[in-house]
Amino acid sequence: MEQELLLTVKSWVIEAGEQIKESLKSSIEVDIKSNRRDLVTNIDKATEAFLVDKIKAAYPNDHIVGEEGISDKPETVAGRVWVIDPIDGTMNFVLQQRNFCVMIGIFEDGEPKLGFIYDVMANRFVYGGKSTGVYLNDTKLAPVENTSLADGLMGSNGSMFAHDVHGTQKVGNEAMGVRILGCAGLDFLSVICGEQCGYISNLAPWDYAAGVALSEPLGLKCSYLSGKPYHILDGREYFIVATTQTYQDAMVILN
Amino acid sequence: MEQELLLTVKSWVIEAGEQIKESLKSSIEVDIKSNRRDLVTNIDKATEAFLVDKIKAAYPNDHIVGEEGISDKPETVAGRVWVIDPIDGTMNFVLQQRNFCVMIGIFEDGEPKLGFIYDVMANRFVYGGKSTGVYLNDTKLAPVENTSLADGLMGSNGSMFAHDVHGTQKVGNEAMGVRILGCAGLDFLSVICGEQCGYISNLAPWDYAAGVALSEPLGLKCSYLSGKPYHILDGREYFIVATTQTYQDAMVILN
Repeated sequence: MEQELLLTVKSWVIEAGEQIKESLKSSIEVDIKSNRRDLVTNIDKATEAFLVDKIKAAYPNDHIVGEEGISDKPETVAGRVWVIDPIDGTMNFVLQQRNFCVMIGIFEDGEPKLGFIYDVMANRFVYGGKSTGVYLNDTKLAPVENTSLADGLMGSNGSMFAHDVHGTQKVGNEAMGVRILGCAGLDFLSVICGEQCGYISNLAPWDYAAGVALSEPLGLKCSYLSGKPYHILDGREYFIVATTQTYQDAMVILN
Repeated sequence: MEQELLLTVKSWVIEAGEQIKESLKSSIEVDIKSNRRDLVTNIDKATEAFLVDKIKAAYPNDHIVGEEGISDKPETVAGRVWVIDPIDGTMNFVLQQRNFCVMIGIFEDGEPKLGFIYDVMANRFVYGGKSTGVYLNDTKLAPVENTSLADGLMGSNGSMFAHDVHGTQKVGNEAMGVRILGCAGLDFLSVICGEQCGYISNLAPWDYAAGVALSEPLGLKCSYLSGKPYHILDGREYFIVATTQTYQDAMVILN
């Protein structure tokens, strides 16, 4: 059942990626949302509409939560909820035409079931979940090596690192180095592939839903910085994903 | 003449990249240099030896300056000087097996003539110079769009951004965002490809030699943060590469 859903959604995400690549041959229309660094483009909107249409046609009883305003605002997490970010890393998308990704997380009764993170331009696609296993392109991923903070690279939100929000800079100072990628999905992808030992940021549910569904089956730990469990109907929260060792190491430093 | 040199060195760099990819099938031997974040591997050393052997066999009268100790320590910049970093981004190389590059800069009487930056795993190779034109893989690059700081992404050294060294964090705050890649060559590559409006770091000659040879012909500006011109026999210095507009915008903020 979940295997079938996996293959269906995988094909949608690949199709969305093809459409995005095609769209990049024309110029992008950019709108500013809450501030000059909060952007949305015609391609974000078209990609969300494409995915929402697919979901509604195939699974009309499911709920959808999404970044660009198509959310049907479910009041509880009961049943199946799709959490989608059509283009995560919109700033990179606009200014670099790469280093962005398409993300979908599928939850049932509040539990993460399947996740999809597709780095379209680098052709790195991580998908799967607890019951299906997690795959990078066609290769099944083993549990992530339990690297300590002192032995790994830490991904961070730029502003949290600069201003040492809740001790984020101190955490970075303990690591082998800090990386700022400007795209939550790519940071999750790095942690999932063992390229970073963790990632700290300030995230909305559509920024982490796919990531947690992929991370937890590989032995990674995800929570709000406070240690509180995430909840996909919450608003934006300070968030950490890390190996269990890095999570412990960071929690001693964070406040 | 320079066209012939370009093709020769291009083929060496591609061969070095093939050898690095092959080496990654075995485990990497890592040694610590000055501190836990300053690493060198057997592959850095093998790649430097490969390139130095090629240069010495073909151009025995030239001088070589390199990161991993094979420099013949020229006392002046007279004649032809090769400045090489066999693997730039060694931390990424060790921990990620990607996001590193091979770099060569060729100078004549102190003037940058040709540069080579090869992001081996992403297969992005920028090469060329003032007289030959600058190429990304097989496509000739046009001059970089003169983006302002406020409209672009700024690459930075992590520590300089965290501690606002000479105002680096303030510069980042003016930009659309800050990126920390952990590899000078990849930051130069991003600026050259118009994906970042600039990059500020603390660089040795082998970190910037290839970059300046590629950047200046495309209209980018390179200097020490003090505004002083770079000199390839100097030690490590605070450094900026940027579009001319971003350079002006940053210089007002930097101290």
